[in-house]
Amino acid sequence: MWPYMTRSLRPALPTPFALRHPLQITRKHGFTPGRFKGTTRVSFHFQLTLQLMYRSPIKHCKNCGTEVTYRVPDDGDTKERAVCPACGTTHYENPLNVVGTVPHWGDQVLLCKRNIEPRWGKWTLPAGFMELNETTSQGAARETDEEAGAQFEMQDLFSVLNVARVGQVHLFYRARLLSDQFKPGHETIEARLFTEAEIPWDELAFKTVKETLVRYFADRRSGVYGIHAIDIV
Amino acid sequence: MWPYMTRSLRPALPTPFALRHPLQITRKHGFTPGRFKGTTRVSFHFQLTLQLMYRSPIKHCKNCGTEVTYRVPDDGDTKERAVCPACGTTHYENPLNVVGTVPHWGDQVLLCKRNIEPRWGKWTLPAGFMELNETTSQGAARETDEEAGAQFEMQDLFSVLNVARVGQVHLFYRARLLSDQFKPGHETIEARLFTEAEIPWDELAFKTVKETLVRYFADRRSGVYGIHAIDIV
Repeated sequence: MWPYMTRSLRPALPTPFALRHPLQITRKHGFTPGRFKGTTRVSFHFQLTLQLMYRSPIKHCKNCGTEVTYRVPDDGDTKERAVCPACGTTHYENPLNVVGTVPHWGDQVLLCKRNIEPRWGKWTLPAGFMELNETTSQGAARETDEEAGAQFEMQDLFSVLNVARVGQVHLFYRARLLSDQFKPGHETIEARLFTEAEIPWDELAFKTVKETLVRYFADRRSGVYGIHAIDIV
Repeated sequence: MWPYMTRSLRPALPTPFALRHPLQITRKHGFTPGRFKGTTRVSFHFQLTLQLMYRSPIKHCKNCGTEVTYRVPDDGDTKERAVCPACGTTHYENPLNVVGTVPHWGDQVLLCKRNIEPRWGKWTLPAGFMELNETTSQGAARETDEEAGAQFEMQDLFSVLNVARVGQVHLFYRARLLSDQFKPGHETIEARLFTEAEIPWDELAFKTVKETLVRYFADRRSGVYGIHAIDIV
């Protein structure tokens, strides 16, 4: 049912929330905006479940609608996939890219307070799922515009973070802010600038944001910006 | 029907091959291995169509099997998606990561002659679609093992290439070969080492391979390996 979970995670996870509460979930927005406002404190496992739930299992063939079976295809593949017994279509599931920016203004960095699950109320760098027909940089710029309503100039790729546990790769670009005025969208409660000392380290939404910020401020001090490849375990 | 195509590409493409020849296509292996052996010369548009065909359109809901409709969802989204009129599931399609290596042995680099479409008979760096439950580096190592049967030590991320036209991001790592003996898998006709002067530049399978090789040899000469972010247009 959850073919994308690692074996080691499977036994540790609670009953999927969806089985108990038939809420509408969308991968882009998490829960329908507003539905879970106020639920600021949920367990790590619950957060993980939410993240995994973005990928609902394939039950029916996207080509003909027939119920699929999970097996190793006959084409030399070695992994179990959802295969349609009627039309033969094999359905693949692959990791997704999350793209975002480190928008900076002098010695400050722009963070957004999330108005959506998961991690409602926590602070994040502007980021979201990469879409078709855009590059990673274009996607990062789009998300920065959508979530923060910021004016900025895109700079170089800064971090590439693997989160294999949830099948994601996060890519952040540096972005030079051209104004300290923001018009956040509906996914953001508040967008504001923080110096390194002001960063709410314990209130950050994701480890990838924390790891990127730590390296950003270190590189800023050294005066040389690298591209950082990091595995989140 | 092809919601992942850019508007500018749509009119230039020929009738999708699948409409004329109902062959079994898989995204991982292209055509069923062997089916198209010998088809070494096909047009650029045909190759592009093959690449795009890796993503067959979503016609039915993967949750309940009902025929989907394409519309902008009601959750604040701004893009047209496949939405199920019965159970409300929204189906997202996102870019995929292709991960591979630049396996090197002294002043030589390992290339594989492809035994699969697209680009049967052309030379490539070992690479393939990233799978769930692995990092980009682990996926690159897996593909190098599968396609070349090489003994190697993984090194740093070397190139990140956006191919927005086909909804892909390619990531290559340097890999130090520990032996010059290879046991290529069924996807490879031949695996062999090339010096820079010997590289068959006109017989390379993909632009991302060419761009990565050009930068690899340049960095090797300079003695400093960077991480290269490149957009293929």
